[in-house]
Amino acid sequence: MRNLDEMTITQAVLANNSRIGDDRLCEIMTSLVQNLHAFARDIKLTETEWQWGIDFLGRMGEANTTGHPQFALLSHVLGISTLVLAQNNRKPAGCTETAAFNTVSEQPPLLLDLGADLSTNPLAPKGYVQGSVLDTAGSPVPHASLEINPGSDEAPGRVLLQADEQGRYHFCTTLPDHQCIREDSPVGQILGALNRPAWRPAQLEFTVRAAGYQRLTTRVFRQSDPYLEADPLFAVRSALVAQWQWHAAGTTPVGTLSSDPFYTLAFDFVLAKN
Amino acid sequence: MRNLDEMTITQAVLANNSRIGDDRLCEIMTSLVQNLHAFARDIKLTETEWQWGIDFLGRMGEANTTGHPQFALLSHVLGISTLVLAQNNRKPAGCTETAAFNTVSEQPPLLLDLGADLSTNPLAPKGYVQGSVLDTAGSPVPHASLEINPGSDEAPGRVLLQADEQGRYHFCTTLPDHQCIREDSPVGQILGALNRPAWRPAQLEFTVRAAGYQRLTTRVFRQSDPYLEADPLFAVRSALVAQWQWHAAGTTPVGTLSSDPFYTLAFDFVLAKN
Repeated sequence: MRNLDEMTITQAVLANNSRIGDDRLCEIMTSLVQNLHAFARDIKLTETEWQWGIDFLGRMGEANTTGHPQFALLSHVLGISTLVLAQNNRKPAGCTETAAFNTVSEQPPLLLDLGADLSTNPLAPKGYVQGSVLDTAGSPVPHASLEINPGSDEAPGRVLLQADEQGRYHFCTTLPDHQCIREDSPVGQILGALNRPAWRPAQLEFTVRAAGYQRLTTRVFRQSDPYLEADPLFAVRSALVAQWQWHAAGTTPVGTLSSDPFYTLAFDFVLAKN
Repeated sequence: MRNLDEMTITQAVLANNSRIGDDRLCEIMTSLVQNLHAFARDIKLTETEWQWGIDFLGRMGEANTTGHPQFALLSHVLGISTLVLAQNNRKPAGCTETAAFNTVSEQPPLLLDLGADLSTNPLAPKGYVQGSVLDTAGSPVPHASLEINPGSDEAPGRVLLQADEQGRYHFCTTLPDHQCIREDSPVGQILGALNRPAWRPAQLEFTVRAAGYQRLTTRVFRQSDPYLEADPLFAVRSALVAQWQWHAAGTTPVGTLSSDPFYTLAFDFVLAKN
């Protein structure tokens, strides 16, 4: 195996795949090599360009953190995440659609009581969220767990609530706002170079689990958000866009008195059976 | 741009490319997205598999250092580097072949005098290297600079020598030996999972520069190395395999007396004109 050139290298790499014991891994590596080589060959990638790519991946690695996961974000902005989610989540009619990967963080989510206040920004309006976890027949799924990612840099991270025996849940959070992918991050720089918008529409992320049902990881977007139609992550689905209702100062859904205006959101999750 | 599925996502991502001002960047991004999507679609990549890939890239990023550049190494072991080098380095007959990327390190190489001793391992045999830098007519290229990477973890890093007015160079180094890609590194783990050999054949890496000539970055391999035919980096070229000649203890090429056996290597570099 010497003197490989642009005509012979792909077969030489693929020949190694006969050593792989796992059929699926062999299938993945074969397609990965074929498609990456096709990319390099189709556009006659230069040394300088490829070296830039390798250096860029190194900068991605340096910037990659749990809070700002660069590789996941790059997958999202290249549309690969939406493609992978779509081809693996064909659900029965009536189910809530999947719109995010279920990423397992190293820190377990903080378990809070129903009705918990997740808001952290005293200057931002509060939003009161309530709804039910249901099956496709409209019956409640009792005691489903809801992992909530308020999706804000200032938020305390993921929290876990447990719906009641009627499948009902409610909590309070800072009203989500659209957020910009950091311009100084590698993915932000790529979006800038591509002249693509970097604003993500306002959203809450949920992972809903219940015994006997498929896990659902999804996002709930905010109607009238100016960035809904140009989501850089290609994740928006019409059924996941919901109305945050404005309310003047007064009594909140949990019976407290608010001296500021506040918002409410009602959203039900419909799970598919296992 | 909502409700994208596996049939519509690729076109939706590509539609963004019309915003790109630079034609070449547009070409690169179009092919990258098409080929990555083809990969995910062809094998119906699952969420779990893609999440593993994203996490793996994060581990690559953590392990990526100048001395152990994981992303460059992954490019090599997937054959992409050889493909990119081959399609960009069609040289006139008689020229020394390219066999490596010219990676620019943050640290400038250490400038040493001709004849310098780069060896660092007192227990390993010494090797005396000499040769000339020539043009395709066989005429010397005076004062060419040779950047040398001894390719060993114990080596002091890159050094720079300047050939004399006859294009001649010589130096002394530890005899290169084959080296194993670290099993505990992400790329080493990939090679293990693929049941692929991780031993790189012994080599010295050179970058040769001279005004009026194309820069040459290449590797010189050692004849009879047991790993020449299974180089995990797909870089070996017959014309770059050279004989290290064994010598009994005695007078070295530089006139010193060696109480241990030593080796000599003669290798000329032939540069292509600009």
